[in-house]
Parts: sequence; C-alpha cells; structure tokens
Amino acid sequence: MITETQYAHFPSLTLDVGETLPNVQVAYETYGTLNAARSNAILVLHAFSGDAHAAGIDHEGKPGWWANMIGPGKAFDTQLYFVICANVLGGCRGTTGPSSLNPATDKPYGLSFPGITIGDMVRLQKMLIDKLGIARLLAVTGGSMGGMQALEWAASYPEAVEACIPIASTARHSAQQIAFNETGRQAIMADPDFNRGDYYDKTPPGRGLSVARMIGHITYMSDESMREKFGRRLRERQEFSYDFGADFEVESYLRYRGTQFVGRFDANSYLYITKAMDYFDLSAGYPSLAASLERAQSRFLVVSFTSDWLYPSYQSQEIVNALRSRNHDVAYCELSSNYGHDAFLVDVGEQTGIVTGFLARCAREFRTPAGQVGR
Amino acid sequence: MITETQYAHFPSLTLDVGETLPNVQVAYETYGTLNAARSNAILVLHAFSGDAHAAGIDHEGKPGWWANMIGPGKAFDTQLYFVICANVLGGCRGTTGPSSLNPATDKPYGLSFPGITIGDMVRLQKMLIDKLGIARLLAVTGGSMGGMQALEWAASYPEAVEACIPIASTARHSAQQIAFNETGRQAIMADPDFNRGDYYDKTPPGRGLSVARMIGHITYMSDESMREKFGRRLRERQEFSYDFGADFEVESYLRYRGTQFVGRFDANSYLYITKAMDYFDLSAGYPSLAASLERAQSRFLVVSFTSDWLYPSYQSQEIVNALRSRNHDVAYCELSSNYGHDAFLVDVGEQTGIVTGFLARCAREFRTPAGQVGR
Repeated sequence: MITETQYAHFPSLTLDVGETLPNVQVAYETYGTLNAARSNAILVLHAFSGDAHAAGIDHEGKPGWWANMIGPGKAFDTQLYFVICANVLGGCRGTTGPSSLNPATDKPYGLSFPGITIGDMVRLQKMLIDKLGIARLLAVTGGSMGGMQALEWAASYPEAVEACIPIASTARHSAQQIAFNETGRQAIMADPDFNRGDYYDKTPPGRGLSVARMIGHITYMSDESMREKFGRRLRERQEFSYDFGADFEVESYLRYRGTQFVGRFDANSYLYITKAMDYFDLSAGYPSLAASLERAQSRFLVVSFTSDWLYPSYQSQEIVNALRSRNHDVAYCELSSNYGHDAFLVDVGEQTGIVTGFLARCAREFRTPAGQVGR
Repeated sequence: MITETQYAHFPSLTLDVGETLPNVQVAYETYGTLNAARSNAILVLHAFSGDAHAAGIDHEGKPGWWANMIGPGKAFDTQLYFVICANVLGGCRGTTGPSSLNPATDKPYGLSFPGITIGDMVRLQKMLIDKLGIARLLAVTGGSMGGMQALEWAASYPEAVEACIPIASTARHSAQQIAFNETGRQAIMADPDFNRGDYYDKTPPGRGLSVARMIGHITYMSDESMREKFGRRLRERQEFSYDFGADFEVESYLRYRGTQFVGRFDANSYLYITKAMDYFDLSAGYPSLAASLERAQSRFLVVSFTSDWLYPSYQSQEIVNALRSRNHDVAYCELSSNYGHDAFLVDVGEQTGIVTGFLARCAREFRTPAGQVGR
C-alpha cells in the first residue's frame, strides 16, 4: 500500500514548561479503517528518530519503520484495526519542532523553541485523537521512546486507553541512558556549524550529528549482533591501513550510518527530543512508580529483549512490578534475541505472536469510555 | 614515597608497519629494589590513558594510577618486588609519540608518526628491560590495554616472562570495542581544530577530544555504578533547565571529565593508541588463539569483573580456554564488582589477595632463563 502523510493543525499547545506553542502542526499517517463503533483504533508511537511513516510504502518507495508489524495479517492487522502514527512534537518530519517557522519572527525557532517533555508529545497526540473522533483507543504502543509515550498515555488519559504495550522501554531514564544522550548532544554542540542552533540557512552541524548517531547505533546493537554482523572483518582490504581510514567493516558501517542520518534529521530536534527522554520519569511528583500508575485503566503487555543493554529487561520489570502492586492487568514477556535494542524493530517473529493474541483479547473485551464491555 | 620519572633512550625502534623510528625515548618509573639475582622485577603495563606514574606520589602530589596496588604491603609489594612502569610508545607522557619532535623536521610528528601496534609497544618495553639488565621478569601485568601488552609479552618473549597477569582484558578487540574507539576518533577528527593532526602550535581539538573522553567514561562505568553514583539527581537545582545546560549530575560529571582530559592528553595519541588496541589480535597469523600462545612459558592469572561490559568476562574466558587447551598453568578469577571496567583500578580488595598469593608462588618457583627453578 502507498501511504499518504496527512497534516492536522491546532491553534495552540500548552507545554509542561509553562509556555504556549502557537500554530501547531502534526504529521500523521493512518492504515486500515476506523469501524463504526470507533473501537478499533491503535496509536503507534515512534522511537527517537522515527516519523509518521510507520507502515506501507511511501511515494519514494520507502517502507515504514514498523512495516513488518503493521499491515494485513501482521501484528497490528490493518484488516482488523485502524492504525495511526504521528511524528512527535519537536520532530523534524512534519510535526512542529525547532526547524519549524516561528510565527512571531517568520524564522525557524532553533533554540528559541521551548523545552518539551514526553507529556507534551502525548498531549498533542491526544488533541489529534480527539480530532479524529476517537474517545478510547484500543491500544497505544511503541518501542523505546514510543514505549515511554505509551506509558504516559495510560497514566495521563486513563479513560482513553484500553490497552498499553510498551516495548523495550522504561518508566524513567537511567544515569547511563542520560549519559549516552548527553554525549551525543555535546558532540552536536561542539560542532562550530551548530552556531547555537542557528544554522538553517547555513551548513548544518553534520559532523557533530554524525558522531552522535554513531554513538546511538552502538547502543542499539548488542555485542553479539555486532560480532555476528562485522566481527573483525576488514573492509575491502587485506591489511591494516595505519592511516585512520576505515580498516574494519564496523567502522565504515558506523561512518555511513552517521553521514546518512545527517541528511534526514535535524540536529536541534536531536537535542530537544533526547532531553525530553532524559527528563522522562513517570513517577516524578508521586511517592512511587506504582502510585503514578494508580489511575490507569488499561490492560498492559510489557515486552523486553534479552540482549537489549540500552533498555535492559530490569527496567521493564520495574514497570511490571509497579503495575502488579496496584493489581493492574499486566502480562510481561522477555523475548530472547541477539539484536539488542534494535530487536523490537527487526526481530519481530515472537513479538508478532504475542501482540496478536493480546490485541485480540483486548478487542473482544473492549470497554467503551462509559465502562461497558463490548464493541 | 615521592617518585621520579626516569628516561631511557634508544637509537631506533623497528615497527610492525615496516618503518624504523629513530631516537626513541621511554619515560619510566621504578619502585622497590632489584635483588641480586635480578629475579624480582615486575613490569606493570598501563591502560589507554595511563602513564609511567603508577605508584607513590609525584612532585605535584599526584598519586600513581595504581597506587592502591603498588607499594609496601600492597599486591605488588615494593618491599619484595622491583616494580617498573613505562609510558607506552605513541603516548604523550614522556615516551616518544605523535607529539614528539621528528628529528628529520624538528617539528612534532603529528600524523606523520608511523602507525603502531601493541607489539611495537612491547618491543620497546623489552629494550628497556634489557637495558635494566633483567633477563626474565617475575611478572608482567596490567588492566585493559595493559592486559593486552601482558599477553603480547608472554607470547613474544616467552623466555622473559615468569608470570602473566592480564586483568579486565582481551586477546582481541571485538567489533563493539572497535566501534566505541572509532566513534571517539571520529569526534576528534570532526573538530576543525584537529587540522589533520597539525595543531601543536595552535588550539588543540579540545571539543572533539572531550566528547571522545565522555564516550570512554560511560564505557568504563557500569549501569549499576552510574545509578549508585548519580541516579537521576539534579545538579545544584530543583527543576529542569530546559536550556541544554547540565541538568543532571551525570551530565556535569561527564563534561568535567571530558574537559579535564583535554589538559593532560594529546588528541593524536588518542588516535594512535586506540588504533593499536583495535588492531590487537593475538591470534592473527595463527590458526587459533591457542596456537598463538603455544610458545608461552609463563604461569597465567586471568582476572575479570562481573559488571565490566566493555571487556566482558567471556573475553577473559577465551584466553583461559586457549591456555588450558595447550596445558598452560592458568588460574582464572571472575571477581564480583559493581564498578564496571573501572573495577581493576578502584575495587582492588579481592584483586589484591589473589595477586598477592599468585605472585608469592611465582617468586618461590621462579625459573631462571636457563630453566632452573629457584631464585
């Protein structure tokens, strides 16, 4: 299926930082058909560098980032469900972010864009869902930062979420997760082309952004998957160069992924979105994580992967334990995979079966916003 | 004890790359006294950013990097042993490296410095040991890159090594280890001040070097030790800044460690030494790792740490298995620690007991180069 990106507009969005953002645009795609009862909508939430193009093929032939999970007969079966995916607030793929024009100055915001949170991203998604006329989502789901948004949805809009499926995610960023993000930010801000975020009519800080992406890619893979994919294989040569060229395949791969990223992502979005992740702590302002999930009315399916060292299983288990301690309906699956954090994107065999079964049950027992069971 | 750095000079050093490096200087320190039989010498080999100052206190009051392991009554007991530590080839702390003057041009080498290997570092150390009149070392030991050098010693100069103690190390760099190093190198080379390595009379590439060091520091700690040391604690504030300042303690810590490193380390040395680590594969040119250790005549004590994810225990176990398969005398200890890769430097309680006992036995059964047992 060829997909079309659509755009919704809102006069303003109130932010956690206390400011109000005017003229907000949201880029989103939908797949499948909303049923008459409006009870089959699933909101898919993307990870750090994702976008609204989650499924199908776009006009340039590019498949969606979760095309192996969304489509006819897939985990998020578009013959059964109406799937929505929107680019996050602060992004650079159609939703308002630091590269958008500030209506007050008619120039890109740059660093004058206000600080944002996962809560802000979700508040804007709620406005979109309201606009689409959906009172209660069958499910909210996503991996990594997508899982954080899913949790925020369940905690902030309990009446609007039947099922919540956070995958390879966490209820709060750890010191190590903050540390990796901060190193990427420093790489960007160290690039003289960064120019305090004011580079939109100049050369963007591509060298810094590329280094930041290289760091990211290492954390997305596992030691095992890097060994399997690259090992110590040399790149198009028999001997070491001794010249700081790319001797090893893993070096040229990382350089390529870094450079490629510069063409499709905005450095300021990198800063704003990683900060939103670092600020994320669902339990902030509550005595405990369990207390922050007290009001939730969702069924939960929590998924993690054995070799994911960036969002290790213990973080998913913290979510599960908090939910169990409040007698929430929660299932937890730790899936065996060598692919590290990338597993939720690439190693979807077992994930598909688990999500399919869980969604079928949630659809069967869907409770209308008033509380009655049934579609 | 106040320590003095000494300097040895050699007319030339032959390198693995095929070139000959002229006028080579080695900075080294010694602690304790060489006995009459010259049978109590221990060569301590430093990690990536270390130097010759391993023990005691220097004239500026700075303790040695392994002062908790070397000294009277410590693991490397200077009342019993004569301990030697030299700055590695390619370093920037007194031994010839890319910041040294090229005698042919009377300017710093910069990137005209030849490519180097762990084997080259060890070849130069062997020249130093010969000059000190030591035919057989009681032990070679070190953590991380120091452990790689220790293994290279045992494999390349079997008759000169009674005991080999590689700690938190590996017989070959993995794809993930290469990937982290490569990202650091790219951060340095992306800094415009790098100027193709020609910056010695200008501003050094401090921003790039600082980012490289931040990456390193994350890999030296464990997820657990970062959580214990920093958690999500904010730095001198109650609320988030939303301005890309250092909100979290872990951010300001990493920034500080990055900036501090720039004052004491040379960016070109960073490039050359990390490449030497990446090139390191003891088994290269042999059918197996075991075959590469065939000729060794040492007793081995291999140590790793449970939370060290940069040099994980399986890499130490590979060494142990290779040695066992050739019936070498090898003991392996995986020590429990939360400190990650840093454990070999900071969590030395258990390590001390194990090394002390092993060394006492090796000293008792010391074999002279001709093969007779006994001091």
